[in-house]
Amino acid sequence: MGRIRGFASDNNSGVHSQVLAALSNVNNGHAVGYGGDEVTHRTIEKFREIFGAGTDVFFVYNGTGANVIAIQAFTSSYHSVICPQTAHINVDECGAPEKHAGCKLLPVQTANGKLTVANIAAHMHGIGFEHHSQPKMVSITQATELGTLYTIDEIKVIADYVHQHNMYLHMDGARISNAAAALNCTFKEMTVDAGVDVLSFGGTKNGLMYGEAVLFFNHNTEAIKYIRKQTAQLHSKMRYTAAQFEALLTNDLWRENAEHANKMAQKLAAKLKDIPQIQITQAVESNGVFAIVPPHIIEPLQNKFFFYVWDEYKSEVRWMCSFDTQEEDIDDFVELIKEKVAQT
Amino acid sequence: MGRIRGFASDNNSGVHSQVLAALSNVNNGHAVGYGGDEVTHRTIEKFREIFGAGTDVFFVYNGTGANVIAIQAFTSSYHSVICPQTAHINVDECGAPEKHAGCKLLPVQTANGKLTVANIAAHMHGIGFEHHSQPKMVSITQATELGTLYTIDEIKVIADYVHQHNMYLHMDGARISNAAAALNCTFKEMTVDAGVDVLSFGGTKNGLMYGEAVLFFNHNTEAIKYIRKQTAQLHSKMRYTAAQFEALLTNDLWRENAEHANKMAQKLAAKLKDIPQIQITQAVESNGVFAIVPPHIIEPLQNKFFFYVWDEYKSEVRWMCSFDTQEEDIDDFVELIKEKVAQT
Amino acid sequence: MGRIRGFASDNNSGVHSQVLAALSNVNNGHAVGYGGDEVTHRTIEKFREIFGAGTDVFFVYNGTGANVIAIQAFTSSYHSVICPQTAHINVDECGAPEKHAGCKLLPVQTANGKLTVANIAAHMHGIGFEHHSQPKMVSITQATELGTLYTIDEIKVIADYVHQHNMYLHMDGARISNAAAALNCTFKEMTVDAGVDVLSFGGTKNGLMYGEAVLFFNHNTEAIKYIRKQTAQLHSKMRYTAAQFEALLTNDLWRENAEHANKMAQKLAAKLKDIPQIQITQAVESNGVFAIVPPHIIEPLQNKFFFYVWDEYKSEVRWMCSFDTQEEDIDDFVELIKEKVAQT
Amino acid sequence: MGRIRGFASDNNSGVHSQVLAALSNVNNGHAVGYGGDEVTHRTIEKFREIFGAGTDVFFVYNGTGANVIAIQAFTSSYHSVICPQTAHINVDECGAPEKHAGCKLLPVQTANGKLTVANIAAHMHGIGFEHHSQPKMVSITQATELGTLYTIDEIKVIADYVHQHNMYLHMDGARISNAAAALNCTFKEMTVDAGVDVLSFGGTKNGLMYGEAVLFFNHNTEAIKYIRKQTAQLHSKMRYTAAQFEALLTNDLWRENAEHANKMAQKLAAKLKDIPQIQITQAVESNGVFAIVPPHIIEPLQNKFFFYVWDEYKSEVRWMCSFDTQEEDIDDFVELIKEKVAQT
Repeated sequence: MGRIRGFASDNNSGVHSQVLAALSNVNNGHAVGYGGDEVTHRTIEKFREIFGAGTDVFFVYNGTGANVIAIQAFTSSYHSVICPQTAHINVDECGAPEKHAGCKLLPVQTANGKLTVANIAAHMHGIGFEHHSQPKMVSITQATELGTLYTIDEIKVIADYVHQHNMYLHMDGARISNAAAALNCTFKEMTVDAGVDVLSFGGTKNGLMYGEAVLFFNHNTEAIKYIRKQTAQLHSKMRYTAAQFEALLTNDLWRENAEHANKMAQKLAAKLKDIPQIQITQAVESNGVFAIVPPHIIEPLQNKFFFYVWDEYKSEVRWMCSFDTQEEDIDDFVELIKEKVAQT
Repeated sequence: MGRIRGFASDNNSGVHSQVLAALSNVNNGHAVGYGGDEVTHRTIEKFREIFGAGTDVFFVYNGTGANVIAIQAFTSSYHSVICPQTAHINVDECGAPEKHAGCKLLPVQTANGKLTVANIAAHMHGIGFEHHSQPKMVSITQATELGTLYTIDEIKVIADYVHQHNMYLHMDGARISNAAAALNCTFKEMTVDAGVDVLSFGGTKNGLMYGEAVLFFNHNTEAIKYIRKQTAQLHSKMRYTAAQFEALLTNDLWRENAEHANKMAQKLAAKLKDIPQIQITQAVESNGVFAIVPPHIIEPLQNKFFFYVWDEYKSEVRWMCSFDTQEEDIDDFVELIKEKVAQT
Repeated sequence: MGRIRGFASDNNSGVHSQVLAALSNVNNGHAVGYGGDEVTHRTIEKFREIFGAGTDVFFVYNGTGANVIAIQAFTSSYHSVICPQTAHINVDECGAPEKHAGCKLLPVQTANGKLTVANIAAHMHGIGFEHHSQPKMVSITQATELGTLYTIDEIKVIADYVHQHNMYLHMDGARISNAAAALNCTFKEMTVDAGVDVLSFGGTKNGLMYGEAVLFFNHNTEAIKYIRKQTAQLHSKMRYTAAQFEALLTNDLWRENAEHANKMAQKLAAKLKDIPQIQITQAVESNGVFAIVPPHIIEPLQNKFFFYVWDEYKSEVRWMCSFDTQEEDIDDFVELIKEKVAQT
Repeated sequence: MGRIRGFASDNNSGVHSQVLAALSNVNNGHAVGYGGDEVTHRTIEKFREIFGAGTDVFFVYNGTGANVIAIQAFTSSYHSVICPQTAHINVDECGAPEKHAGCKLLPVQTANGKLTVANIAAHMHGIGFEHHSQPKMVSITQATELGTLYTIDEIKVIADYVHQHNMYLHMDGARISNAAAALNCTFKEMTVDAGVDVLSFGGTKNGLMYGEAVLFFNHNTEAIKYIRKQTAQLHSKMRYTAAQFEALLTNDLWRENAEHANKMAQKLAAKLKDIPQIQITQAVESNGVFAIVPPHIIEPLQNKFFFYVWDEYKSEVRWMCSFDTQEEDIDDFVELIKEKVAQT
């Protein structure tokens, strides 16, 4: 760890100074635990102002926790959840959805991390057939794990299909701020207004120390507090989770952070276009750049700027920008790439 | 929330200033996520110095997370876990052990929250009988949920019995610092040296913002990283969890905090002895005081100093002290008790 | 195995000749699998005639399967099920309820295997409190595992309490035929009319080769077919399960079998009363006799007539009669007891 | 149900007369329950003679039960199981593997229902990476759900790869008799000698009323009896399960039944080759024929001979033969096909 900023993940970044300040400000005497405090009430109201009065908010520790609570809320163990092959719930949670909900994931191959009605429909068979796990939820990620975005209209089309088939739409919004900033829309337009039923609202990747929120839109959420507790996602000193979100939602800090990260990715992508040996593989629509690079440059680059190889076979890498990525980080990184590319 | 400190729980307290400072200090550039950072490595080493080189350390978010990981580590779903009826895992985790491990808890009635070999033995039947969940773990809490303590010898006797019967000993150490401070011993003497196999090491109740650690003593822990991830207990920005523990373990801050909380409980208990209408029901051995009080005083007291009723039928209350309880909090509280008691 | 009949369990008995004949009769050409056949339809209708038109019937393989389907039908993993300590679901299913439903069992100490409202009420705390598994089901066994019976009025009182508290009443009827025969009532009076929500209807212990049925009374059972399949309780060649039940329900074979078993238990109990060294410990109300016996006679008796020790510490044994127990079995057994008792 | 035999499934067939006779023969007095009887011991020995002395045998009710016990035996919830997309465990058990074992299935697209090392290897990434379910088992079906067969050498190649990667090889042998008959080999050559670790040995589809067996080859199986009980797969009156297998293994009844079914499938396939509108889609290697047929003939055919559509979009059907399929069933069926095909 140190001053050097890499491109490994937006969760390698630190905590935004305003978030850190909020943690200090709230460190003041005793507060009722488990969410019974004023900061939590206040922050939940803030979420309701943003997402609408029918929104119920449950703070949790991390994204996996948020996702498995969302899944448990709407599925039984004989149900299935349709998601892209690349979904975090499918490949990055060590089977947590299957363990916690007992249900089956139905992964779909996609070119860009985005589901379409056509590939959801391909899994809609065996309905009512007791030998077959019954599709009950569709999960999309916004922005996707490949840095791409659903338009609001694309979400609406999926939501309509999902609801016509008596299912629920989950949005994994680990990077929802990056998406809203990129689409220049409100959170509400992209979620509840588009037909999302439950949202994992990400905080950690956009400047929080820890903490995500599960938001339910116009649903009975009586059971969720028990599910959250049983899933070991209920923070006793909840004010510290809530205070971070309050800071994030104040003066649109979320948008400022996300816009910056997105801008840095755009800058990186733009500069990479000048390097013929680098092939960008996904549309750069949020804060990540995916690229096929000459294999020999990977290790030398990683020694200076840490990042992950996305697909070893294709020599495809993932470079993530975050709220604290600096212009000179991009400049230095691209310089280094150019230098290493030249050293065949 | 505010400046007023109550007696509801040691988790209603704030974050110790040195812990908060540590969070700021570590907020510095990027760090590899999920525990690959220097602070985490350093803090794990610190734990190893304290508990011995055979100790493996897994940071998690909260106590329920720690406990269910410990249980999953050593049980299969056809096993059972023997614990006191009052154990946190039995009554305060919304069935998380049953859900996560699939196994059965065998609660034992105790007078003081402490297991003995005799009441463990009462559950040791049907061994090898496939119709019966097989006892595989014994879980004790130190300090107990009733504020009492096991002596080191008592732990040894239980550990010997447990190991003779091919079982594992788990210690829920949500308040292990209070116990070590009260017994004036090292953590090591009370745990690994006494035969504990796995420890939930508490931080939140002793001045941390969030965070517990699961410590395994001389066991193969290859599977634990997967269990932790799947249990949604793996923090991406791990340095912030580790930094808090580093602060807690530096200059024995843990002991200072715990001793203070214990001392406040002793002071409260001593003062209560002068009030004949108050009957202390458990030995005051750590940082909690349990007492039967006149029912009419409960609500007026709670309005000023928040706390929980432990047993409605007996009008028994629980008053917890914490690292930030002030002498004057005790004085004011006892004055108020006297006043309310007088108002029959 | 052989011609000698013991008193170990009613499941050590064979298959009633009419049931065996039914299996042969149905072995005729092809039939649609999984319950789509005529015999299954016909037998379900027979159950509906007996229990009422609102009855939904799901055939399964065994009692544990029936019980865990009933529990899964009405609980989520954050719920708890209140039952007697001695309940089969609690002590004889190797933790299957916890594994399959993820929920917590709350066992109640009873003198005679029977729950009362008072001991259910003792577990009705922490309602709405997210740290606590929420009671959602009460499970009673009729006849109980101790051979005792609930009167219809006792069931009604429990059912009323259960429903007032927004819970469901499950009856484990592994020996429901023995109960109905002993109370000289219909199945319907003792179950749906008394307020039972879901019944595990036992077949195996009353002359079937295998097979139980889960009966739901006036509930939405859309999900049950999936739960049954996922619980590995869906028989492909279902006609063979159904045909057995058809035989059992034809000409009240169930009652004939059960009455005989009950009568044999009465005969055994009556004869034992003449032996002062034998102390019958439970009211003999169905087909089992529980007795404290001189320890030295147990093994010699078992060598001739197999049975199980119920409580080693008390030298208490369980002697079960079944549909095929013969008068001379009782006579011979009691003679042997007398002989062994005399050999101090 | 009736005398007419269809082609829906080998589990639509009845019970072989010798199996039915065995059930009668064993219906004789009392027997110790849960497998403590002579017939069970004898039949387990028979399996050991066939599969080798290191074989442990656990009788269960059905194939889903057998499969989920096999999976639970060798996996934890953070593991994954690699299998063909078409595997019964993946598409026909309503998510039972995910529910019972908590683990993830990794389905592989195949042309013919058969795994190869290449498509197993495609899933062998993220090993040691805690975010990723860890592959621990490979499951193959013999004969496959598409009626195709692995050669013994193909199994060996897979087994070698599996073991080199510290995994276990499960064989779903719901139709293992058809496979052994078709390959003209012993059970042992195709399983334990080829490197299979655990086998679901099918009975129901080859003339039994119900019953499968889980066979472990040279493994510690101490835990299996608890897993079987908890999975609700332990039959109390076990002699009736065992007796059926005893009949099946006596005088190679299994081979006689399977050879006949295979021969009927060959006959059907041979006759279909004369009908140009029918396109057989899979190699006919065991007892099933898969074919693309003119859509308009499906319903008329089904009205007379029941069968299932395999793939609606392709108009592909599955026709299964069984031990009781008669030569004239084939003749009549093909006549009807010809007739219906002609009626465009």
